[in-house]
Amino acid sequence: MEAVIWKRPCVLALRSCGPFATCGSRGTCGVRNGGRAPQRTFILRVINSAGSGAVVARPSSARKYKRSEGVDGKLAALRQLFHKPGLQMDAYIIPSQDPHQSEFIAECFMRRAFISGFTGSAGTAVVTKDKASLWTDGRYFLQAENQLSPDWMLMRAGTPGVPTISEWLTDVLSPGSKVGIDPFLFSSDAAEELKHTLSTKDHKLIYVYDGNLVDEIWKEDRPKPPTAPVRVHDIKYAGVDVSSKISSLRQNLVEAGATSIVISMLDEVAWLLNLRGNDVAHSPVAYAYLIVELDSTTLFIDPLKITPEVTVHLKNSNVTVKPYESLLLEVERLANCGAKLWLDTSCTNVAIVDAFHSACNKYFENLPKRSKQKSIKERNKLLDAKSIDIEMEEPLAIHKASPVSIAKAIKNGAELDGMRQAHLRDAAALAEFWTWLETKVVQDKMTLTEVEVADKLLEFRSKQAGFLDTSFDTISGSGANGAIIHYRAEPDTCDIVDDKKLYLLDSGGQYVDGTTDVTRTVHLGEPSSREKECFTRVLQGHIALDQAIFPEHTPGFVLDVLARSSLWKIGLDYRHGTGHGVGASLNVHEGPQGISYRYENMTGLQGGMIVSNEPGYYEDRSFGIRIENLVIVQDVETPNRFGGNSYLGFEKLTFVPIQSKLLDLSLMSPAEIEWLNNYHSEVWEKVSPLVQGDVNEWLWKNTRPVPVHSTA
Amino acid sequence: MEAVIWKRPCVLALRSCGPFATCGSRGTCGVRNGGRAPQRTFILRVINSAGSGAVVARPSSARKYKRSEGVDGKLAALRQLFHKPGLQMDAYIIPSQDPHQSEFIAECFMRRAFISGFTGSAGTAVVTKDKASLWTDGRYFLQAENQLSPDWMLMRAGTPGVPTISEWLTDVLSPGSKVGIDPFLFSSDAAEELKHTLSTKDHKLIYVYDGNLVDEIWKEDRPKPPTAPVRVHDIKYAGVDVSSKISSLRQNLVEAGATSIVISMLDEVAWLLNLRGNDVAHSPVAYAYLIVELDSTTLFIDPLKITPEVTVHLKNSNVTVKPYESLLLEVERLANCGAKLWLDTSCTNVAIVDAFHSACNKYFENLPKRSKQKSIKERNKLLDAKSIDIEMEEPLAIHKASPVSIAKAIKNGAELDGMRQAHLRDAAALAEFWTWLETKVVQDKMTLTEVEVADKLLEFRSKQAGFLDTSFDTISGSGANGAIIHYRAEPDTCDIVDDKKLYLLDSGGQYVDGTTDVTRTVHLGEPSSREKECFTRVLQGHIALDQAIFPEHTPGFVLDVLARSSLWKIGLDYRHGTGHGVGASLNVHEGPQGISYRYENMTGLQGGMIVSNEPGYYEDRSFGIRIENLVIVQDVETPNRFGGNSYLGFEKLTFVPIQSKLLDLSLMSPAEIEWLNNYHSEVWEKVSPLVQGDVNEWLWKNTRPVPVHSTA
Repeated sequence: MEAVIWKRPCVLALRSCGPFATCGSRGTCGVRNGGRAPQRTFILRVINSAGSGAVVARPSSARKYKRSEGVDGKLAALRQLFHKPGLQMDAYIIPSQDPHQSEFIAECFMRRAFISGFTGSAGTAVVTKDKASLWTDGRYFLQAENQLSPDWMLMRAGTPGVPTISEWLTDVLSPGSKVGIDPFLFSSDAAEELKHTLSTKDHKLIYVYDGNLVDEIWKEDRPKPPTAPVRVHDIKYAGVDVSSKISSLRQNLVEAGATSIVISMLDEVAWLLNLRGNDVAHSPVAYAYLIVELDSTTLFIDPLKITPEVTVHLKNSNVTVKPYESLLLEVERLANCGAKLWLDTSCTNVAIVDAFHSACNKYFENLPKRSKQKSIKERNKLLDAKSIDIEMEEPLAIHKASPVSIAKAIKNGAELDGMRQAHLRDAAALAEFWTWLETKVVQDKMTLTEVEVADKLLEFRSKQAGFLDTSFDTISGSGANGAIIHYRAEPDTCDIVDDKKLYLLDSGGQYVDGTTDVTRTVHLGEPSSREKECFTRVLQGHIALDQAIFPEHTPGFVLDVLARSSLWKIGLDYRHGTGHGVGASLNVHEGPQGISYRYENMTGLQGGMIVSNEPGYYEDRSFGIRIENLVIVQDVETPNRFGGNSYLGFEKLTFVPIQSKLLDLSLMSPAEIEWLNNYHSEVWEKVSPLVQGDVNEWLWKNTRPVPVHSTA
Repeated sequence: MEAVIWKRPCVLALRSCGPFATCGSRGTCGVRNGGRAPQRTFILRVINSAGSGAVVARPSSARKYKRSEGVDGKLAALRQLFHKPGLQMDAYIIPSQDPHQSEFIAECFMRRAFISGFTGSAGTAVVTKDKASLWTDGRYFLQAENQLSPDWMLMRAGTPGVPTISEWLTDVLSPGSKVGIDPFLFSSDAAEELKHTLSTKDHKLIYVYDGNLVDEIWKEDRPKPPTAPVRVHDIKYAGVDVSSKISSLRQNLVEAGATSIVISMLDEVAWLLNLRGNDVAHSPVAYAYLIVELDSTTLFIDPLKITPEVTVHLKNSNVTVKPYESLLLEVERLANCGAKLWLDTSCTNVAIVDAFHSACNKYFENLPKRSKQKSIKERNKLLDAKSIDIEMEEPLAIHKASPVSIAKAIKNGAELDGMRQAHLRDAAALAEFWTWLETKVVQDKMTLTEVEVADKLLEFRSKQAGFLDTSFDTISGSGANGAIIHYRAEPDTCDIVDDKKLYLLDSGGQYVDGTTDVTRTVHLGEPSSREKECFTRVLQGHIALDQAIFPEHTPGFVLDVLARSSLWKIGLDYRHGTGHGVGASLNVHEGPQGISYRYENMTGLQGGMIVSNEPGYYEDRSFGIRIENLVIVQDVETPNRFGGNSYLGFEKLTFVPIQSKLLDLSLMSPAEIEWLNNYHSEVWEKVSPLVQGDVNEWLWKNTRPVPVHSTA
């Protein structure tokens, strides 16, 4: 799956990439300040001189409005709630998030879709007393125009002249206004940034704890929170038992001077406890929080999800179960007990972080005055010494990236083996699929839509052992649709897959033992020389990255240029990253590593990580090309080890033929052709035992070596 | 010249890379704070978990002390000055800097060498009431051991267990001590960092304005400040006249809301005024400051340096001359007149920045109280609006990177042409030199030392029209000495250049029309297969970078990996950057661009910039390899322009043969061999008209194409 906008540690998760992308005060004020408060008030420290221009909102075109006209009453009802006792708000922000900053969310959290009518996966609604605006990004402009009523203004995020949410709010609200949010739906970092930005105009951000306001309107129509049973992720796939994982985590706590940690990301909870859930599409996770203390572990989850098998599993690992809703109480208890609580504020919602901070404040207020002064002095002394005495009785918040993220990213032997096995079965399903597609389109001249083709692919995958779900919504893009990076074919409007156009297929499966994500681009007829040149250059980038050998801990962005160089030679490029992390039978997008032009991600690559390798090229209104394999970062035996470093390379996980017909061999070096032939030889060797008859024949044909010419 | 430690915007200039490299609070505290003050006192925000370990100083080995024993009285004299009226200091730091953060400094500023006896180019001395320590880096450990008296402790910077200066100070001083510095020798940023670090232990940094304490001991023996005459840099080389440059700079001021700027970097002053000086070795600059206001330009310089020709030149450009020493008075005047003064705190010394801030403070203190309150309110309003009304009467400091740095980096047509011409004459001198060296060593079997060889090279360069000076100390390293990245051969201790070992020669010239910097590595006998493999891989990196095509504004670090990939394949690497900026008949090292693994330098490459391309490989105690050309960043005509971007590539400036004998052709691709043959063909075409006889013959032999084999 393409890697363009996934970003874990902020509100900019896939589901809301547009609106908040430019509102963050960290990007502007933090830099302008040079990371320090100015020495004296008359200093203007300017490092980035780009000023913000005038803000002009562009209203949605009413002409295109097709739904039943008129006000459905939701906005009026929501605005009435602004005046609830104790609130007195002037605006309310409704993001696309769930309380865990998940990429895929349960229906009960799709509040933005409910209130606005716009059902796209990314968007943020903001309602003031007399205005309602919805921010979304380019892939949803058309859909939003069709779905929004005239009560709403569409904000085409990323288009010149369109304000960010905070720019708009500071523009339309009178100074000193109150802006409300549901604190469960904003990470602490995102809320702090928003608070800071609003405060520059004297606005106040208020956390509405007393229930989500949209839910009060949604009432009984609101889908129930999911209660799908949780299952144990077999140790033969997990590789390491829960006790060992918790034990390593406790070691991290001790090293950081912490006594406890709140785990909020659903995949981190699932990975730590060797559990898998079924609460959302595509990701095998369950809604839950986890608190790990030095001597106890508590899972906060709806008890309905806990089967007898899971009860035993948890008991064996000394994990106590408490209701999902009781988390905040427990967080407050931790403060009262003097816990040193590790909180990853980039992904933990501000309700949790604030609950702990408030409880800490109360703790200190309740201390006798003299003892309080002494303790503050002592605490400062400790902070100064850069070490924390964990015997100290007072609570402390430690803001630091979750250690589970990196532990989960470095797969163990069993996880890697599960990934290898799942990829072979996935490759067999794809071989069956491609054989079917070629037969239907080329031989039978059938008319197939993008949706029908994607459905058929799911059918083939479903037959494979251990298949659970797709790992994301399949991107099935024919011709010009392939150029829409986040394209999702809809039955009513989609194109057909034929032998006239390039066809881009980006898809993946969730299996009991692994997660796949693969993109191939094919032409079932005669590709143009333009298409061949572009495809060849994308493949050259893919090969250059695949063959890279580099010192351990090299940040992924260092390698990004290898995937682009060949396109750059003729002035082409692509507007997304080159690689993202992938979970082992978990989320198809995970951090912390990545291979991208986002140069701020300094996470070094380490052996055992899994990343995608997916350069592409997209010609607007014409065609899209992407070639994606998943690879394992692995130690490589080099004849030297300069500086005592280990050197790393990639082991391929994906074994699906790359269409040789699309290559302009004259552009390729002998070494590149050799790479392709070796890859296809490996595909044949590994996948042919799994497929029979015409599929086996198709695989044979599509893995034959291409001739190595004399010079390039 | 290798690019390893040059870094413009901080105290870490070449001359003091070691000591301060790890003392900066920006690198630690700034990050730990996440760029913001913690919300509440009990939050410990930890992003970088690396703590500082215990500090153990390693004393210099007294056994190796060779100089006349005993105390020379300098330290005692210096310590006496600690008690001067109004001072009462506990320590004094003596860095290697001049007041302009120059790479090469005049003798009168070599105070650290005078006080410590250690004459290496990089090092910082710190003297307390009972201790004296000197920090230097690996290349000078041996020299420092020999030169320091037993009164001094040698701090081997970069060695495990060796404290940074501030770590050491906080260790040896009792809390609340006073540490003095000469504020002219520290950039404002460096001083602020030092002040912050010391303050964490309640120490106070004090600026000793009243003369440098070392000068008080040095007395009449101190060399006089240089008074070499300044000359006009001909408009045929400068390309743009002074009035136009000043006019562009004033446009920058207006856009930033500034009314004036202090230019402190000597090459920026020289470039802006089309002047060249002769005050220091290797860089054609003169000690001077420049203040540009919206309606006047003032050069602060010793009037002795101003010839009648220069007087006319400056008058034509409306530049007034004032004495060098009167700068601070002028800065104070600016504050009193309500100037909005642009200060680049990364390179402007803290004496200047502090003078302006103090004068501003006085200005506000002297305002009637009511008007003061009003004005502060108004000022905040203006800051908030991110725009500055330049009519506002009150002074303001604008801390921002100097706009001259980037203007100077982007060369105009005349500058580029001068660089091209100078490089051809330099190439002719090198052809003569290599012919001579081969004849002497191979044919005549002469014994030549590294110093003799470097001297002969200077002789050949000196014969070229317009030659002025070497652009840095020649690095002439035979065998194992080639592996010492900053090697400087000394007559007493240097090795011989023979036909048994690799020989690395990194050198450059200053010419009236350009500046050169070139490295070649040769073997005058039979290279080993190991040497050939390493040389070939270094060349492959050089070629990959040279051939890169990339979107405009790509930061240089993105390209760095291209120069390393081939070495990484076999587990090799080099510990320096790949490219640095070069001035046009100016400093051989200039910013702001670079090509390096220093990922924080986000300066984008732009057409007209000049950078070096100099990958290398160094095998300790064995050999060193570096291949360096200078290249011009230039627009490239690509068949596409994705996203409307221009694409950039490199034009070669350096035309000196690369020794084919050192290549393992079996490792090279046909495309790489083609690059080499094309390069040599161009070398022959451009340089052969400039050399005759045996030199012409040598050039012919050394530019013949190598065979392209069938596959790689």
